[in-house]
Amino acid sequence: MKKRVVVALGHKALGTTFPEQQVAVKTSACILADLIEEGAQLIITHSNAPQVGMIHTAMNEFAKFHNTYGAPMSVCSAMSQGYIGYDIQNALRAELLRRGIYKTVATVLTQVTVDPYDESFYHPVKVIGRYMTAEEAAAEEKKGNYVIEEEEGFRRIVAAPKPLDIVEIDAINTLIEAGHIVIAGGGGGIPVLKQGSNLKGASAVIEKDLVSGRLADLTDADMLMLLTDEEFVILGYGSEHPVAIGHLTPAEALAHIEHNEFGKNRMLPKIEASLHFVTQKPGRQAIITSIDKAKEAYLGKTGTVLS
Amino acid sequence: MKKRVVVALGHKALGTTFPEQQVAVKTSACILADLIEEGAQLIITHSNAPQVGMIHTAMNEFAKFHNTYGAPMSVCSAMSQGYIGYDIQNALRAELLRRGIYKTVATVLTQVTVDPYDESFYHPVKVIGRYMTAEEAAAEEKKGNYVIEEEEGFRRIVAAPKPLDIVEIDAINTLIEAGHIVIAGGGGGIPVLKQGSNLKGASAVIEKDLVSGRLADLTDADMLMLLTDEEFVILGYGSEHPVAIGHLTPAEALAHIEHNEFGKNRMLPKIEASLHFVTQKPGRQAIITSIDKAKEAYLGKTGTVLS
Repeated sequence: MKKRVVVALGHKALGTTFPEQQVAVKTSACILADLIEEGAQLIITHSNAPQVGMIHTAMNEFAKFHNTYGAPMSVCSAMSQGYIGYDIQNALRAELLRRGIYKTVATVLTQVTVDPYDESFYHPVKVIGRYMTAEEAAAEEKKGNYVIEEEEGFRRIVAAPKPLDIVEIDAINTLIEAGHIVIAGGGGGIPVLKQGSNLKGASAVIEKDLVSGRLADLTDADMLMLLTDEEFVILGYGSEHPVAIGHLTPAEALAHIEHNEFGKNRMLPKIEASLHFVTQKPGRQAIITSIDKAKEAYLGKTGTVLS
Repeated sequence: MKKRVVVALGHKALGTTFPEQQVAVKTSACILADLIEEGAQLIITHSNAPQVGMIHTAMNEFAKFHNTYGAPMSVCSAMSQGYIGYDIQNALRAELLRRGIYKTVATVLTQVTVDPYDESFYHPVKVIGRYMTAEEAAAEEKKGNYVIEEEEGFRRIVAAPKPLDIVEIDAINTLIEAGHIVIAGGGGGIPVLKQGSNLKGASAVIEKDLVSGRLADLTDADMLMLLTDEEFVILGYGSEHPVAIGHLTPAEALAHIEHNEFGKNRMLPKIEASLHFVTQKPGRQAIITSIDKAKEAYLGKTGTVLS
């Protein structure tokens, strides 16, 4: 029986530069094809931090230099979905063909609504773009953007609001129901604010793990796989006695969250996404593991399972 | 009864800069919503010349400056589909909501295969990017790229091969069948070459009108609407006695093509796309008209009809 699985690819699955990504997606495609051969019906989502950073910097440096209009963050996010989706769908299509599997892999441009009153807008945390001089930083602040000072210089930071709805969810579900492989919600989706009947692009980056959890819920997936650098979730990470966890119940996960056991930027969003997904409906499973262990984890042999 | 219509939006429907596009897509969205209210089931495609040019220049100037990797033409095309699709789908979604119509508008990233032996690869014609110095031009030529000299300097040119297949056509058709509005084949699609089971990005730009014709054929549309600057196709354009044409049969169109009646870069691809579409199956109609006359033309009151 087909199992519907949302797989979230992290930085390692994509690399940073153009040639790096072309190589990395080939390896990732093999892993995804393994899952498909094991009977998984895939919905693929991915991070975009270095890619959207590069696009944002390039477009806005260019605009400054030629004294023309810069690209809003939401447009850069849309561009990164095009760029990364193209590479993933291409690599996966080719790998499936090599295995004699004929399936369409389609990338659906995805917008995700966020709450304009999300408190994250008052505490931006996501760094974007290159280091700036004090002068450039002042100019950014004048435009209403947030800036932080680091050792090497100033950097722009944007908010990371929580995802609410996935605007194109009906189209995504139509494709899944018809048996296509879908790439959606890339980079956490293009963040938009509802303003009457309009959706206005937000200067923000949505945590891709949280969008993966929403996507898994709204596509009624059986499994959410968050692929990262390590095989297991570790308790006491960096301490003298780190403990690798094979299984967590929602109650255990909540208790660990309360004890600040998870790294705020790294593991916490993965645990929160998993919790959100498994607690919406009985019988669901979330797995956090490394990309090279994806198949074994899918078969129940490794990884941290939240269920 | 619903009529399935592929609408191709040209430059005027989108504008050039970021703010221009945001305004232009609102006007275009009203026109598209009018067609939907008249019973058209839309598949939307669009040009991308200034947008992909801007992206290509920005990404590659940035790469030169920071001595890092530039973006291949195919990646820039994917980015432009993300950027333009986002703006069109957003504007149309809002306009439909305002009229009480609830429909998903989804952008599907689209690759289009081209023949590696297409003779256009030996005669590149599409100008991309900014003017270069003689030195920069020589560096481009050393990389195997084509360059032409114009009065103001040197520019890179790429091939414009004919479209063969639309790789994601099954996904596009699934969405249309389910009643979604689809944006696909933007900028003529991402041009790719078949190499075994791989699709390799090509340094090329596919004529968007020709892709519109393929898209209309492969989605089994009833009508192809090519929206441009003028209400009618003109014979003897620029002569003392220009004649606006209301209707053309395929035989008439072919005869005019043989007599070089149509501008090679402007009108010829529109006529060729229309011819391709209407001659694949009886009962089909292609209309060439201006964007502001789209609704009247849809209702049979104006425009040049090829049938």
